[in-house]
Amino acid sequence: MAKDKASRRPRAETPKGFRDYFGADVTERKAMLDAVAEVYHRYGFDPLETSAVETVEALGKFLPDVDRPNEGVFGWQDEDGDWLALRYDLTAPLARVAAQFRNDLPSPYRRYAMGPVWRNEKPGPGRFRQFYQCDADTVGSASVAADAEICAMLSDALEVVGIPRGDYIVRVNNRKVLNGVMEVAGVLDPSDPAKFEAERGIVLRAIDKIDRLGETGVRALLGSGRKDESGDFTKGAGLSDEQAEVVMGFMAARRDTGAATAARLRELVGASTLGCEGVQELETIAELLDVQGYGPDRIVVDPSVVRGLGYYTGPVFEAELTFEILDEKGRKRQFGSVAGGGRYDDLVKRFTGQSVPATGVSIGVDRLLAALRAKGRAGAEAQGPVVVTVMDRDRMGDYMAMVGELRRAGLRAELYLGNPKNFGNQLKYADARKSPVAVIQGSDEAARGVVVLKDLVLGAQIAAGASLEEWKSRPAQVEVPRADLVRAVQDMLS
Amino acid sequence: MAKDKASRRPRAETPKGFRDYFGADVTERKAMLDAVAEVYHRYGFDPLETSAVETVEALGKFLPDVDRPNEGVFGWQDEDGDWLALRYDLTAPLARVAAQFRNDLPSPYRRYAMGPVWRNEKPGPGRFRQFYQCDADTVGSASVAADAEICAMLSDALEVVGIPRGDYIVRVNNRKVLNGVMEVAGVLDPSDPAKFEAERGIVLRAIDKIDRLGETGVRALLGSGRKDESGDFTKGAGLSDEQAEVVMGFMAARRDTGAATAARLRELVGASTLGCEGVQELETIAELLDVQGYGPDRIVVDPSVVRGLGYYTGPVFEAELTFEILDEKGRKRQFGSVAGGGRYDDLVKRFTGQSVPATGVSIGVDRLLAALRAKGRAGAEAQGPVVVTVMDRDRMGDYMAMVGELRRAGLRAELYLGNPKNFGNQLKYADARKSPVAVIQGSDEAARGVVVLKDLVLGAQIAAGASLEEWKSRPAQVEVPRADLVRAVQDMLS
Repeated sequence: MAKDKASRRPRAETPKGFRDYFGADVTERKAMLDAVAEVYHRYGFDPLETSAVETVEALGKFLPDVDRPNEGVFGWQDEDGDWLALRYDLTAPLARVAAQFRNDLPSPYRRYAMGPVWRNEKPGPGRFRQFYQCDADTVGSASVAADAEICAMLSDALEVVGIPRGDYIVRVNNRKVLNGVMEVAGVLDPSDPAKFEAERGIVLRAIDKIDRLGETGVRALLGSGRKDESGDFTKGAGLSDEQAEVVMGFMAARRDTGAATAARLRELVGASTLGCEGVQELETIAELLDVQGYGPDRIVVDPSVVRGLGYYTGPVFEAELTFEILDEKGRKRQFGSVAGGGRYDDLVKRFTGQSVPATGVSIGVDRLLAALRAKGRAGAEAQGPVVVTVMDRDRMGDYMAMVGELRRAGLRAELYLGNPKNFGNQLKYADARKSPVAVIQGSDEAARGVVVLKDLVLGAQIAAGASLEEWKSRPAQVEVPRADLVRAVQDMLS
Repeated sequence: MAKDKASRRPRAETPKGFRDYFGADVTERKAMLDAVAEVYHRYGFDPLETSAVETVEALGKFLPDVDRPNEGVFGWQDEDGDWLALRYDLTAPLARVAAQFRNDLPSPYRRYAMGPVWRNEKPGPGRFRQFYQCDADTVGSASVAADAEICAMLSDALEVVGIPRGDYIVRVNNRKVLNGVMEVAGVLDPSDPAKFEAERGIVLRAIDKIDRLGETGVRALLGSGRKDESGDFTKGAGLSDEQAEVVMGFMAARRDTGAATAARLRELVGASTLGCEGVQELETIAELLDVQGYGPDRIVVDPSVVRGLGYYTGPVFEAELTFEILDEKGRKRQFGSVAGGGRYDDLVKRFTGQSVPATGVSIGVDRLLAALRAKGRAGAEAQGPVVVTVMDRDRMGDYMAMVGELRRAGLRAELYLGNPKNFGNQLKYADARKSPVAVIQGSDEAARGVVVLKDLVLGAQIAAGASLEEWKSRPAQVEVPRADLVRAVQDMLS
């Protein structure tokens, strides 16, 4: 098995599905996350940074069988035989922390977390095996005020990073209403929760596919089943047309005002206790937001939000960007979802046996950053450093003094540190660095106590092979006394 | 092997050797790294964020044999049979990136990187298997101006995070001078570099242990060998007393001025070409720093810096904090090293076959943060949020409106989201949150249009079981009109 080491060099390659982030990739994401963190902080959320590595046991969901676990996580066995794995999200580590430190943490515990997570999945275009998540959760509060707070905070966060009001909407739905609808449709029996579990699973999966399958496809899955284009048949939930009508009605229940939507939902859930509770929760959330000024222009009750309804147990939220962008085929389409969340039970129960209610939201960091770039709020070409060139290699001290002065004045500045022999390479370097100003001082200028400043923004494209003479003859350059270096560069930059 | 799932709950435990960072742990480190990044940016360094996962092949140093690699890294085999591992430092990924993107990156390439690295080592007190590194490197410059720049930048970074001038010193040494000394001592033959390799290894390991073994121990290792307290014998390099004297002289070569130190080093390296080159480099570095105002009060040539001399190939730097702290036994000692680096060859050569010179520095993030805390520059008790308490659970909207107003005014504020029944729990919560002000409004206050503000900083310790009546009777509280809430809280906080 062992390869012959001497036979070839190692490949310099990012592992499949991973990528590197350079310069502005890093700083723009950081600026966005810093702004979000500032909002979370103001809402009283505390940062938590767990380690990248968790025990597979704590992560749950995945269990080592015969070999290593390979269902979606990167895992390995440590020297004691315990299985460890990279976290696949930020919620599982929160559950572990909430259980492990339950006697030390404030209750309720508001925390935010930002950082990479890892998925052992097939990488695809734009789909990586390491990516950032940005979560905020409140653990230990059963109050829907906690859900309302998360929605308000999400709205503030979107605005603070640069999505103007009107360009986004936070939609709220509730799993309990859907459960009430299921009760009315006859696939949920409150006295026997296990009954119809298979049917409800089909219903949940069906409504989750409404975007892809359309109303007809979903109706087929709610009924006897659906044959797709390839001829494969998916078994349906077996609902009658009347039953299916109730479920379809739920997704289409949105009316012009929150009150009208709630009234329509009350009709749909009929006598279902759980359903009525769900409608009441939605009304309360809307009221609590309203008193803070978060009206339906920002946060709206919308039963058509179905994503995540299968996972969450109460309120469900989704933030959508409503402005249009051009897709890869040049067609206009709405940007779509950038964040989602909801209330989930039994976060901590796995560990302690005690039920702990929790609610939270996760921002899709890469998608939101892409949205900001689409809106011109990020991704502007960052200006590079001033580059001090080297004409005489035995006067490095003089050049270093210049760059030192510029830096002390708060300017971003570099000394060219490559081989100075070919001056053209220095200009190419300044170009690659997107440098706005090059500082030049040959022995002639040094003798006269001056420096030459080349305005590279004006001068634009430096011809690849331009000689020093050609280049110095261009217009956008000035000669200034050496003593005026900093002021003159500042002028040129302003 | 498979355990009975039903038989027990998973343990809520951080994996051995890993830890969680809460609140100020996260924000203080972030503030420090942000300040350092700002300096690096001004020097023209660009951020790079590589993925946590690398191929074992690219990481080098570790090779999969029969089983998984377990020499210091966390590694696993992916579905294609390739070995992947978590990075153990930030230099190996830089080497991979510099090779992989050599046609796209500016040359020289200045980059900084900050982030966690992982070591599969026995954890110990204060020693974790995941920790932060903060590196800055210049790849592709053979000029000692690059080394000088790193030293100046390190000095600026220490000051900007809060280590005042005079409390630190950056020391510079040079591996080439040591090689010159080895040549004079007769354990390096420039015409046959492989000769005496074993002896030189012993010399390098010996001088690296000067802190622990003292002069006598090192002399023994340079000579015939050394028996330690347990009776174990370590073979020496076999140098004669005269040869050993040259090596010891190198470490003791520091004089009052840089010029005197250089003169002493010139004596020691005699006719060695490499040695003279090394002394010349040290002199040039000192000159280049001097013209920028980095005198020996900040950066000094010091041949007693021996750490890393075995690893680096040219200049070596170390930043030490010179103020005293009390150690765990209450004795005064210098804080010691917080950063180190140097010049290393063949970073990229492993991949491309082409030699690429590089130099860089790594800041020990945890040690520097500990130093800042020791100096009172970090770790100050952070003030918690204003807590709006809940007296009437059917007036959640009123309370939420209050917290919303406070937040919009830029104040950090929370609504109590736990079960409001036991008011004492709300006060305990405010205490746990280090809240400076609690806002209280019962139905009585609501009817009169006022709120009660409790100054918790003044009021100090809230007795665990204090009843609402006892508590409200304490002095540090005021009643203000509801409309004046924000202003009154601002007054109390100022």
